[in-house]
Amino acid sequence: MHPPTPSLVIDLPTVRRNLARLGDYAASHGLKLRPHTKTHKSIALAKLQLSLGGSTGLTVAKVGEAQVMAEATDDLLLAYPAVDEARCTALAKLAARCTLRVAIDSTFAADALSQAASREGTTIGILIDLDVGTHRTGVQSPAAALALAQHVDRAAGLRLDGLFFYPGFIASPPDQQKAALEAVDAMLRQTLDLWKAAGLEAPIVSGGSTPTAFQSHLIKCHTEVRPGTYIFYDMNGVRGGYASLDDCAARIHATVVSDAVPGQIVLDAGSKTLTMDRCGPAPDSGHGLIVEYPHAKITKLTEEHGQVDITACDRAPKLGERVTIIPNHICPCVNLQNQVWWTDNGSDPTPMPVDARGKVF
Amino acid sequence: MHPPTPSLVIDLPTVRRNLARLGDYAASHGLKLRPHTKTHKSIALAKLQLSLGGSTGLTVAKVGEAQVMAEATDDLLLAYPAVDEARCTALAKLAARCTLRVAIDSTFAADALSQAASREGTTIGILIDLDVGTHRTGVQSPAAALALAQHVDRAAGLRLDGLFFYPGFIASPPDQQKAALEAVDAMLRQTLDLWKAAGLEAPIVSGGSTPTAFQSHLIKCHTEVRPGTYIFYDMNGVRGGYASLDDCAARIHATVVSDAVPGQIVLDAGSKTLTMDRCGPAPDSGHGLIVEYPHAKITKLTEEHGQVDITACDRAPKLGERVTIIPNHICPCVNLQNQVWWTDNGSDPTPMPVDARGKVF
Repeated sequence: MHPPTPSLVIDLPTVRRNLARLGDYAASHGLKLRPHTKTHKSIALAKLQLSLGGSTGLTVAKVGEAQVMAEATDDLLLAYPAVDEARCTALAKLAARCTLRVAIDSTFAADALSQAASREGTTIGILIDLDVGTHRTGVQSPAAALALAQHVDRAAGLRLDGLFFYPGFIASPPDQQKAALEAVDAMLRQTLDLWKAAGLEAPIVSGGSTPTAFQSHLIKCHTEVRPGTYIFYDMNGVRGGYASLDDCAARIHATVVSDAVPGQIVLDAGSKTLTMDRCGPAPDSGHGLIVEYPHAKITKLTEEHGQVDITACDRAPKLGERVTIIPNHICPCVNLQNQVWWTDNGSDPTPMPVDARGKVF
Repeated sequence: MHPPTPSLVIDLPTVRRNLARLGDYAASHGLKLRPHTKTHKSIALAKLQLSLGGSTGLTVAKVGEAQVMAEATDDLLLAYPAVDEARCTALAKLAARCTLRVAIDSTFAADALSQAASREGTTIGILIDLDVGTHRTGVQSPAAALALAQHVDRAAGLRLDGLFFYPGFIASPPDQQKAALEAVDAMLRQTLDLWKAAGLEAPIVSGGSTPTAFQSHLIKCHTEVRPGTYIFYDMNGVRGGYASLDDCAARIHATVVSDAVPGQIVLDAGSKTLTMDRCGPAPDSGHGLIVEYPHAKITKLTEEHGQVDITACDRAPKLGERVTIIPNHICPCVNLQNQVWWTDNGSDPTPMPVDARGKVF
């Protein structure tokens, strides 16, 4: 029995292997794992990460995701600044149910969270977001991190818990990451020294991403890592040199719906299934890999159509044939589905809800 | 009262004006309107299109959308080939409840639909998809259209209803569309002449898209048009010269969540809100227009972060400030939301479900 197409199907043995491998690595280096649930948004898979991968808590990107994932753990990190009343109030309420931390980069956010926590009578743990080179969020220097930490340390309803960083600028392959990671370590160390001199502790130093996950030990002051994509991997991982095709645990199942245009087939997987995300390490490689036809190229997506150039293929996919696609970037693909499907050692695919998708804030 | 951010908010007076304007145009040229509901996926907005815009039926992209939109109309067109058993069976069942047509480009699809309709004891109307230059789907010549029409005409459970085409390759601005549309008309006319000589009728000739909507009269053998985006418009329309900013009825409301990096702010609208769709007519223009800061440029999206270069702005957006964004391409943005919000002449925003999002096939 096959699910209708297009559908996203997850191979559970591969998921388990991915989780165990990073769990073993983290344990062997004394690092805690706090997986980012933005990739799967599933309570069941979050529980698997906690039971199999040695994870001690979960990371979320949205407050709505935190509210859902509180069902799986009592230890949550919102890896996102909260500055508005709606987010801050919801977080302060959630902090009554679990240990909740938020990464912030402004006194504005600190004050907004402090007021909300004070109103609700709860305490929110704070990690200071330090920009180590990604230039997305994060205070700009060790001195700025100290100033914000001191502000948080004085604020009612907040508890200073440590440092947060995102090494998203550090590209694969792994053999080129060493110098960049050691530079990050030096910047973190300088910050921690400033804090120590000012009498502040940082029990948590939270970093990590999937591309750098197995190099995390090069940042010696790390206490925990927050990879997301490693549960499924995708073509970004394959082409970036940090995953094999066999590691890719989630595929889009699609059907050939047209072969009318010579040299081309059309799949029922367009941008509303595969997203328009290009493959970071290979932006001209198309919109995902068709596993059964590796010489085919998904050249153009419209909303529900995926146009595939098959001129380099040995044989042409047939009308009505089912194929499977490894997407460029799996996280936003999962986010498009109300439910995905899982299989386990060849079992019939079984539906699984994407519990935390579609949350507002 | 403001909805939490990021949210998609629809201005109903602008929607009504957009619907009425195209409705008036179509009526003045004797054209039927069959709006494509993929843009909004809302039963309430589909009903508004039927009551206000003079529409005589609806277009859908997926079978799941058809099942939802059957609540709004008894006259549906699936503008998508159906070749697999799951789709064909669901369509054949739906044909018992309403007039249902499907656009196809292969005898394979005709046979699959014929078998399903015969099993269910229903009749499915068929439009022959002719490729007039988009090179996505569609038979490749008037002679091929005749051959497929004759196949359909002989098939049990099918009713040959006419021709279907998609002029998606015809770019704006309108003053450059005339020659291309007239060439399409000539190709359609040639096909219809072949059909007539073979004793086949084509009561429906269905085409149209939003960029060419107000030039539809240049295709003289048109009987109906299927625009989708015209209900909301977007930056593709503005930069393509077929919409004004005032026509854009749907905006993303977002909050400034970080200003830590000099020359930049971060909004809580990333690729899971704005999508990675580039603006067709201006691919380097960023990821949508911030209405209050037209000189700002949304330079980079990650999943929940929108990085904005504000170096060209007269004043800097403040932390916690709310802004509104007109997306590059509105259709996939709506598709990311479980619910959107509407306002009417300044009323408080009210939630509205995106009824047909997240359907499997």
